Amino acid sequence: MHKFKIHILFLFFILLSCSVHSQTHPNLILTKKGVADIRAELNQLPLLQSSVQQAIDFVDGEMLNGIDVPVPKDMAGGYTHNCHKKNYSLMQKAGALFQITQDEKYAAYVRDMLMEYAKLYPTLGLHPANRSYAPGKIFWQNLNDANWLVYTSQAYDCIYDWLSAKERKKLEKDLFRPFADHLSVDSPQFYNRVHNHSTWGNAAVGMIGFVMNDKELIDRAFYGLKSDNIKADQKDNDGGLIKMPGQNQAGFFAQLDHLFSPDGYYTEGPYYQRYAMYPFVMFAEAIENNRPDVKIFEYRDNLLVKAVNTLLNLTDVNGLFFPINDAQKGMSYLSRELVSSVDIIYHFGGQDSGLLSVAQKQGQVMIDDSGLAVAKAIKEGKEKSYQKKSANYKDGADGEQGALGILRAGKGEKELCLVMKNTSQGMGHGHFDKLSFSLYDDKGEVLPDYGAARYVNIEQKFGGGYLHENNTWAKQTIAHNALVVNRISHFGGKTDIGNEFHSDPYFFDSDRENIQIISAKENNAYPGVKMHRTLALINDEQFEKPLLLDVFRVNSDSVQEYELPYHFMGQLLSTNYEYRRPEVLSKMGDSNGYQHVRLEAEGQADGNNAKISWFVNDRFYSLTSYVSPEDKLLLIRSGASDPNFNLRTEPAFVIQKNKKKNAVFASVVEVHGSYDRITEFADNAFSSISKVDVLENTDDYTAVSFEDVNDNEWILIIVNTDACKESKHQVKVKGVDYQWSGAYYFIQSKR
Amino acid sequence: MHKFKIHILFLFFILLSCSVHSQTHPNLILTKKGVADIRAELNQLPLLQSSVQQAIDFVDGEMLNGIDVPVPKDMAGGYTHNCHKKNYSLMQKAGALFQITQDEKYAAYVRDMLMEYAKLYPTLGLHPANRSYAPGKIFWQNLNDANWLVYTSQAYDCIYDWLSAKERKKLEKDLFRPFADHLSVDSPQFYNRVHNHSTWGNAAVGMIGFVMNDKELIDRAFYGLKSDNIKADQKDNDGGLIKMPGQNQAGFFAQLDHLFSPDGYYTEGPYYQRYAMYPFVMFAEAIENNRPDVKIFEYRDNLLVKAVNTLLNLTDVNGLFFPINDAQKGMSYLSRELVSSVDIIYHFGGQDSGLLSVAQKQGQVMIDDSGLAVAKAIKEGKEKSYQKKSANYKDGADGEQGALGILRAGKGEKELCLVMKNTSQGMGHGHFDKLSFSLYDDKGEVLPDYGAARYVNIEQKFGGGYLHENNTWAKQTIAHNALVVNRISHFGGKTDIGNEFHSDPYFFDSDRENIQIISAKENNAYPGVKMHRTLALINDEQFEKPLLLDVFRVNSDSVQEYELPYHFMGQLLSTNYEYRRPEVLSKMGDSNGYQHVRLEAEGQADGNNAKISWFVNDRFYSLTSYVSPEDKLLLIRSGASDPNFNLRTEPAFVIQKNKKKNAVFASVVEVHGSYDRITEFADNAFSSISKVDVLENTDDYTAVSFEDVNDNEWILIIVNTDACKESKHQVKVKGVDYQWSGAYYFIQSKR
Repeated sequence: MHKFKIHILFLFFILLSCSVHSQTHPNLILTKKGVADIRAELNQLPLLQSSVQQAIDFVDGEMLNGIDVPVPKDMAGGYTHNCHKKNYSLMQKAGALFQITQDEKYAAYVRDMLMEYAKLYPTLGLHPANRSYAPGKIFWQNLNDANWLVYTSQAYDCIYDWLSAKERKKLEKDLFRPFADHLSVDSPQFYNRVHNHSTWGNAAVGMIGFVMNDKELIDRAFYGLKSDNIKADQKDNDGGLIKMPGQNQAGFFAQLDHLFSPDGYYTEGPYYQRYAMYPFVMFAEAIENNRPDVKIFEYRDNLLVKAVNTLLNLTDVNGLFFPINDAQKGMSYLSRELVSSVDIIYHFGGQDSGLLSVAQKQGQVMIDDSGLAVAKAIKEGKEKSYQKKSANYKDGADGEQGALGILRAGKGEKELCLVMKNTSQGMGHGHFDKLSFSLYDDKGEVLPDYGAARYVNIEQKFGGGYLHENNTWAKQTIAHNALVVNRISHFGGKTDIGNEFHSDPYFFDSDRENIQIISAKENNAYPGVKMHRTLALINDEQFEKPLLLDVFRVNSDSVQEYELPYHFMGQLLSTNYEYRRPEVLSKMGDSNGYQHVRLEAEGQADGNNAKISWFVNDRFYSLTSYVSPEDKLLLIRSGASDPNFNLRTEPAFVIQKNKKKNAVFASVVEVHGSYDRITEFADNAFSSISKVDVLENTDDYTAVSFEDVNDNEWILIIVNTDACKESKHQVKVKGVDYQWSGAYYFIQSKR
Repeated sequence: MHKFKIHILFLFFILLSCSVHSQTHPNLILTKKGVADIRAELNQLPLLQSSVQQAIDFVDGEMLNGIDVPVPKDMAGGYTHNCHKKNYSLMQKAGALFQITQDEKYAAYVRDMLMEYAKLYPTLGLHPANRSYAPGKIFWQNLNDANWLVYTSQAYDCIYDWLSAKERKKLEKDLFRPFADHLSVDSPQFYNRVHNHSTWGNAAVGMIGFVMNDKELIDRAFYGLKSDNIKADQKDNDGGLIKMPGQNQAGFFAQLDHLFSPDGYYTEGPYYQRYAMYPFVMFAEAIENNRPDVKIFEYRDNLLVKAVNTLLNLTDVNGLFFPINDAQKGMSYLSRELVSSVDIIYHFGGQDSGLLSVAQKQGQVMIDDSGLAVAKAIKEGKEKSYQKKSANYKDGADGEQGALGILRAGKGEKELCLVMKNTSQGMGHGHFDKLSFSLYDDKGEVLPDYGAARYVNIEQKFGGGYLHENNTWAKQTIAHNALVVNRISHFGGKTDIGNEFHSDPYFFDSDRENIQIISAKENNAYPGVKMHRTLALINDEQFEKPLLLDVFRVNSDSVQEYELPYHFMGQLLSTNYEYRRPEVLSKMGDSNGYQHVRLEAEGQADGNNAKISWFVNDRFYSLTSYVSPEDKLLLIRSGASDPNFNLRTEPAFVIQKNKKKNAVFASVVEVHGSYDRITEFADNAFSSISKVDVLENTDDYTAVSFEDVNDNEWILIIVNTDACKESKHQVKVKGVDYQWSGAYYFIQSKR
């Protein structure tokens, strides 16, 4: 009888096990085969080995401190918040380590911690902070709860087979199922959006669904909730609408369909795209492992592969993301999210050997099949250097909301890279800088974007959150290399209005050796003002490095004051005009960012050219601009109206054209020479540009020229109304007839 | 008869040759044996090989352009100046290459260029610029002519045996002998000084003397001119006296006797010591090769060995010289002068294997016996890391003119290094910063010295010369971490007065594990004001890294305004007191450097402690100071009254004590934590110091304490009138009796 009972029980377990999951574990990020392969090859693969060792060092160190699962209380940055964050990271790593090392201490550690959570979770109401539009139970916002489940589902998967059925049952009943329900059915305003928050929610629910083989949860992850009762005017903490008008899809596929442009560009910019990538690629890997029939990596014309490559291309020479919109400088493709992205896209997205060089720089890999694949390929010498390129990334889900343009010229020391922002607003994190640009060379920033006014997680600075000055300075037009009209920011600095419009890419050509060029228009930033900017990188052996040519044409139906700033870095060396420096420095205005800058010098050009040279990082830079003698040439510096020293004090050169309806700004920027502090030798310290001229500016054509000190001359003619490549044009400029096809014509006109 | 004539001629040549030189060539820097050894071992020694290859690349490249020996015309930076500079460098390298490669093209190149000079030189009067107190013929100043001969004598030595006797005769008669005479007998005001200029002159004359085996020239190099008719009030271009009162020696040995302190410290500071070293070590090598009986490297208790080691120890973690006095930041032990110094001192000064690691970092060696020795030793794995140390370098030829103190605590990431300037004025390049200090960590500058206001060789900035602001800002007391009384610089900013005095080192102790300490007094900077500063690096495991404790005691016979600035870098993070920021920024004064700073914030402490924290290079820094609530706490920034944007705009925190006769400033500086821009995690971002207190301040003792956030407390008691190590002391502080021997007492008083 006793024996019989045991048999019955055993049979029951077998049956239960068959009915609940048809697959074996791990099956989510790690796989059974992957574990076997990793164990077999680990010793031969230094990159994987060191990644495993890092995890061991972290987990073993923390295990000494015992398990702490405190009752939730604190906001971000506080003790319980940080503790639960660390816990999910520990569990994820310990789970993987159990599989790789087969040391049961890791499994026991995960189990014991999960059991603590299973004890705690049923006792919890909403997080006491009560500050979020969608509160979590463990954390103040559901977003963090979703983070927890994305990580913890991986840990559960790794010890699933090791646990007893009874343990599994308790965990699923008291923790995982109610946890997934809280993220979804209990929080439709969080779960049923098209938003990066919801992406985390979808991924969390889907990943635990795969581990539990819970088809309902998987379905909920893929397609969202069937009903949600979200009101049309319901908003989140940032003031964003929960549901955009017309949105009637939700779930992971809706995110893939709507959050990215067809080029894989995410409208908030690369800093936020980086953050958003993790749940996308992790859940995609889980889908590929469990539902290969979905062909998730091929979805929407290989969207995820494109998204990762786009993100990698939105970095400077040091791998730092271009900090457009709200972005903290210094974030790079070394981040955790990009390690996952690069490994997963390498493994599942076509084994692009260029990705291996990025993985090499990252110095670590995922502890899974994809990390194994990357470590193996590197060991086998398959690595090629990642080729960044010129590209014009369309913005908007339909690709019709403007574009972000990248031009790259020169190699190695001659590298020059331009970022031109002709996108949509970028939602709540967007800045008011239509047609702005930033410039990078082989050392990094040259004409920078300020980035966000924020010190992320540095508590002394407003708890690490966005500073007041982010709105009053960093988002304003004057903080960018963008045209300001009458000292008012684009769209009056109103996000709601900005959201309605996007700039219009006009033409883009990166196919030629001697010139790469991008042109765009913006007609909505100011009522009645039409802006048209063309930026070109020009590569000519007469110059040490490629040049930047900037032609900014503006037309208005009434007279305006136009101010075009060029933000630079370091020390002013010289100007070709005289300037006066005020004895006393005052803020330049009361709003639109002008309250944060002080006028440091003001002058006017003798003739039609203004030149400034500056010096930073032991290199020389010069800007030569076509101006009128009546134009004001300002040197300004940020840092005014800054009660808490939140701003960096950085200089900008501003060309001011007063009482103009129409105007053309034309400037050449040079990166040149170097200074050696050991030999104290200055090489090529002077600008090579002797003249910049605007030869013609009609409704149809704008022609500019520049000359070097050896009397070489180059002309660029821009067609203002027809960007068609095939259109034929003919125009007489200064007595010379020019004929060409296409939107622009560039020629060395004198040598 | 014809045959006979030839024989006679031959015999005459033999005789001539015997009488003029008893030695073989090369014998100056390269030696016959050295050349044979180098040729034999070159292929095995990568460092030497790459140094030779660099020389080949340079010389071969320039040989393609032919020889250009233009008639002298330009000042420094101009064409003829640069051309003649390049020529001597080319000849020196080509000469060495002839010896090493035995390719006669190099010998011919040197000969042909020398012949051009031999043609030109007899036609020259003084350089037409007429701007120097001692004009050269090739260059505007004799200093550069001496440079030319120091280099060119090496080239001549290398091809001496290859030349015909007739060629030698022409060169010596038309070029070298008159050249040496112009530097010496024709220019006593240049040659017969105790000065780095004269050192170049002595070395030049002596080196060509060795090549020509001209005993008169060698004697003149060693001991100067016997008579010079220099007037007592004769001055050089910098306004310095040609002859200091009482100076009656000249020549190379006089330089060795008087230019350095017994510790090998050169009074102008490391930036100029670096420049001065080259003729010293080069001529010394020549002396050793030709007159080993002199034992030049043992002269004055191994002075030259000490001088090089002192110089290497006067560098930060990156090998950058501490920029005290006039110094351009960025100069380091990678300089050409230090390559020679390190190689020569290694080879001739005792084969200190620590020097090899410096040579390794330099990445090149001399092409001579010393470079061979270094390359060989490195190849043989003899390299050890160079051990920098704490040291108190005496200033003045007699070692009685103050001292420059260096304290070093912690290793690797914990490294902290303090430089305290208790020296003499440092002559015309000296700054007015008695008892000032600068602080360095393992990344570089923390509390910096501004250095010189100069962009050496950057023509746009006043031709690369010293800027006006060097006098009005960089030299002034407020530009340093030094005490300012009544907003007047030390000695009223007058060099002549400063030259009369030096600070008084009081005690120095670097022998203990937990504290390294330096103390000095200054009683002459202000009439009636006695300053006494004690700086300590404190190493305690309670803190992440060593701390700096600064105790500045000042006593006066009348009431004063005291201002003590701490110049820092980067972004202010937080203060523990409230401050007001003026709407409008104005210069703080009209003179003494205050015209160059603006007040950016002013506040007062609530209690007796003021704390500021700042953030730079992704690291946190805090300063906590004992203050009175009535003390003013200022944040200031340089950059005012700067018509040409010559100044860097950098912040400083200033503690102002008003209407005080006596005062004590006591502050603790912490380097702590880090910020990771990839993980966005801030580690140890807050100060650990909870309190700094002045417990006691009498004529006899000053006692200060500081506490950490865990209620540990440390006390430092300074004996104010007796620095004797053996003296016994007893004092009651806050009711506790302390007893000790020596000038200070440091104890953890509470834990």
